[in-house]
Amino acid sequence: MTLEEQVLERIKPSPAEKEKLQEVASELLARVSTVARINGIEGIVPKLVGSAARNTWISGTHDLDVFISFPESASREELEENGLLIAREVAENGTNVEERYAEHPYLNIHYKGFDVDLVPCFAVESAAEIKSAVDRTPFHNEFIKMSITGREDDVLIMKQFMKGTGTYGSELRTQGFSGYLTELLIVHYGSFRNLIISACNWKPGLVIDMLEHGTLKHEDPLVVVDPTDPKRNVAAALSLNQFARFIDACRSYYDEPSEEYFFPKCKEPMSDDEIIKMINSRRSAFVAIYFNPPDLVDDILYPQLDKMEQAIRALFEEYEFHVINSGYWANEEAIILIELTTSQLPFVKKHRGPPVWSYAHAKGFKDKYVGSDELFSLYIEDGFYIADIRRKFTTAKELLEGKLQQCSLGKHLCKTVESGFTILENTDIAKVNDPNFRKFLRKWEQGR
Amino acid sequence: MTLEEQVLERIKPSPAEKEKLQEVASELLARVSTVARINGIEGIVPKLVGSAARNTWISGTHDLDVFISFPESASREELEENGLLIAREVAENGTNVEERYAEHPYLNIHYKGFDVDLVPCFAVESAAEIKSAVDRTPFHNEFIKMSITGREDDVLIMKQFMKGTGTYGSELRTQGFSGYLTELLIVHYGSFRNLIISACNWKPGLVIDMLEHGTLKHEDPLVVVDPTDPKRNVAAALSLNQFARFIDACRSYYDEPSEEYFFPKCKEPMSDDEIIKMINSRRSAFVAIYFNPPDLVDDILYPQLDKMEQAIRALFEEYEFHVINSGYWANEEAIILIELTTSQLPFVKKHRGPPVWSYAHAKGFKDKYVGSDELFSLYIEDGFYIADIRRKFTTAKELLEGKLQQCSLGKHLCKTVESGFTILENTDIAKVNDPNFRKFLRKWEQGR
Repeated sequence: MTLEEQVLERIKPSPAEKEKLQEVASELLARVSTVARINGIEGIVPKLVGSAARNTWISGTHDLDVFISFPESASREELEENGLLIAREVAENGTNVEERYAEHPYLNIHYKGFDVDLVPCFAVESAAEIKSAVDRTPFHNEFIKMSITGREDDVLIMKQFMKGTGTYGSELRTQGFSGYLTELLIVHYGSFRNLIISACNWKPGLVIDMLEHGTLKHEDPLVVVDPTDPKRNVAAALSLNQFARFIDACRSYYDEPSEEYFFPKCKEPMSDDEIIKMINSRRSAFVAIYFNPPDLVDDILYPQLDKMEQAIRALFEEYEFHVINSGYWANEEAIILIELTTSQLPFVKKHRGPPVWSYAHAKGFKDKYVGSDELFSLYIEDGFYIADIRRKFTTAKELLEGKLQQCSLGKHLCKTVESGFTILENTDIAKVNDPNFRKFLRKWEQGR
Repeated sequence: MTLEEQVLERIKPSPAEKEKLQEVASELLARVSTVARINGIEGIVPKLVGSAARNTWISGTHDLDVFISFPESASREELEENGLLIAREVAENGTNVEERYAEHPYLNIHYKGFDVDLVPCFAVESAAEIKSAVDRTPFHNEFIKMSITGREDDVLIMKQFMKGTGTYGSELRTQGFSGYLTELLIVHYGSFRNLIISACNWKPGLVIDMLEHGTLKHEDPLVVVDPTDPKRNVAAALSLNQFARFIDACRSYYDEPSEEYFFPKCKEPMSDDEIIKMINSRRSAFVAIYFNPPDLVDDILYPQLDKMEQAIRALFEEYEFHVINSGYWANEEAIILIELTTSQLPFVKKHRGPPVWSYAHAKGFKDKYVGSDELFSLYIEDGFYIADIRRKFTTAKELLEGKLQQCSLGKHLCKTVESGFTILENTDIAKVNDPNFRKFLRKWEQGR
């Protein structure tokens, strides 16, 4: 049995598991129809979409996407009102009911061991005429069901490969490959193996347009034109780094296939001793900004953490601290971790002024500094005035305490930072005990 | 009495001093004629040139430039042979006779308290047809004598202003204003006062072409076309910094005239305590490369010291040490002094490799680093491979010891460095006792 067959054996749902899923899905679809009829809501078509409907789901995942399709003639108000009404009655048999929002509200429930989304949508003529983003999904479903037959196993193996290499998932936290994107790539390249081989030579700017109907130019590293909508790039959420990491993973796997690409060993949390040893062996300066994150869904929280990390990097560089690496981590607590070449700068700072021949600016510059307490000395270099002045922030800690609140942070994190944060330096980061943070630290030790 | 009149009183030679100079000059000129005649060398015309001949010399300077002018028909060999023969016989009445070299050999002697150059040259028709660089000087002499009358005092005051502000002298150590350039500027602007006022608004790219006969484009900050040679920029030796410093000095003097611009207070050598205090108050890292300089004339030594300083700056920046300031000083000993933000870097160094999609380079990069002792971790960032590796030189001292000899140094200093140098760090620079070095250190404290 080949490695890929062995992997498939571990991830392919058993007949019993499939039957169970089919049974639950059928129940839900029937229930939607019944509820609609009872409430006198006409023209409703319930649809199972997503990987469950396409036979591309991995054993153990129990996600069901049930779409409640309204006629195109329905108004937005009718859809929202009646859609939720139906969903709520269906949800009466489930638990953990939660109202969530995409473009429209929808319900997420637990039902007989499944995680179920009940999503109202419009049954439009074509994906190019959608009234709401979710209306596209049924078309994706049709296209994949039509074209994937016989290659479902390749999708399963590829999804597992992406999960194992950290490139699966199009949510903002991951910025990797979505399920639909993975399916399209298998349709296009024909098999897991062919996709692996082809991706070894991918370059940014690659355009895959299976139906040769794309109408827009996209700037993304990978463009996969949606077969159901010529204007849309299915790979728009894929970041340059994830694109690159996938290429790198495909090459390594091609050179030396191993089970680890699918089922990587779990990173061990670093021990106190390991943290101390790592920091000493690098002799760089670790600075952690530690705070309680606001209660937000990941797709809002993670972009804000990313923005905060970038803002802090920019702050450090502006004040002449040099950033080696940075990252963020969030769980119950949140941490932006920055590795600097040094956390302490000289008291003296070289400040370049105007060129000497710029008379008015020269006067302003000299008036400002000559005789001032902050001036060490003023001189001319390469035709410019230079003032050696007293540096305002000489340690990373002082800088963060003095300037972090004025950084350009996301709305929610801005408030969080106002209400206070803690700075941990160097081996003090070992005061954070969360094992997930300790795993996150392995990045600095082993690479991402 | 105005300030400028007071200055003039201190620097203008007295009638007795002028008479003495005239007397000695006449003796020397007569002696040149006599010696030529005795030796049967025909067509020789002795000429007094330079500031002594133009009444633009400052009291106390005792320099005489005696040119031994040969007919244009003389060959280069005749000029060198007979020129030196005459000079040597004239020199018999002098002391400290030294043969020096410009384009031709000439003699420098001490004679009755004067420093005398005896320089053979060709009497060409015009400065545009010179056979040797020194042939130009008699033309300069004629032009200035013709046009400076009545403004000699303005030249004196301006020369003293330039001396006081460190901008006088066209030798490579100073890269400032030559005597001839100063005289031309006074001719052009008409007076000391007008030159000061005009220079306040100077900008690089200024062209002064009194006879409107310039034929070449020069890239220098200041272009003063030689009235005796349309191709030549008299200000070619003036550096951008000295140009800027002069502008700056003129403005400050214009705003607040004071004797100090002409007769600055002598800088006091810094004491040990002052040195220690200065270094601690800046909290930067001082690194001095200390060695015995080769025995060279200033115009050869100083450019090489400058080159060495630039090479060391470049070396530091290449290895990620950040230079705040640098300078060199030479006397019996020589020192290149560098001020760094820090003299110690982390063990870890971020090394950027090729972009991931560059397949061949990617393979080479990974082959080199994966599994190597020097690797901390390898990862992908912004589409590029990054290796966090062990830094080769983590202290300034190690870097200099390991790499200084491979720097691009001048021929002579290269040998010197090969035979060894000492590195002094921070307060250890107070081990150098030479008071001139201690004055040089004031630059860091007070500005240049």
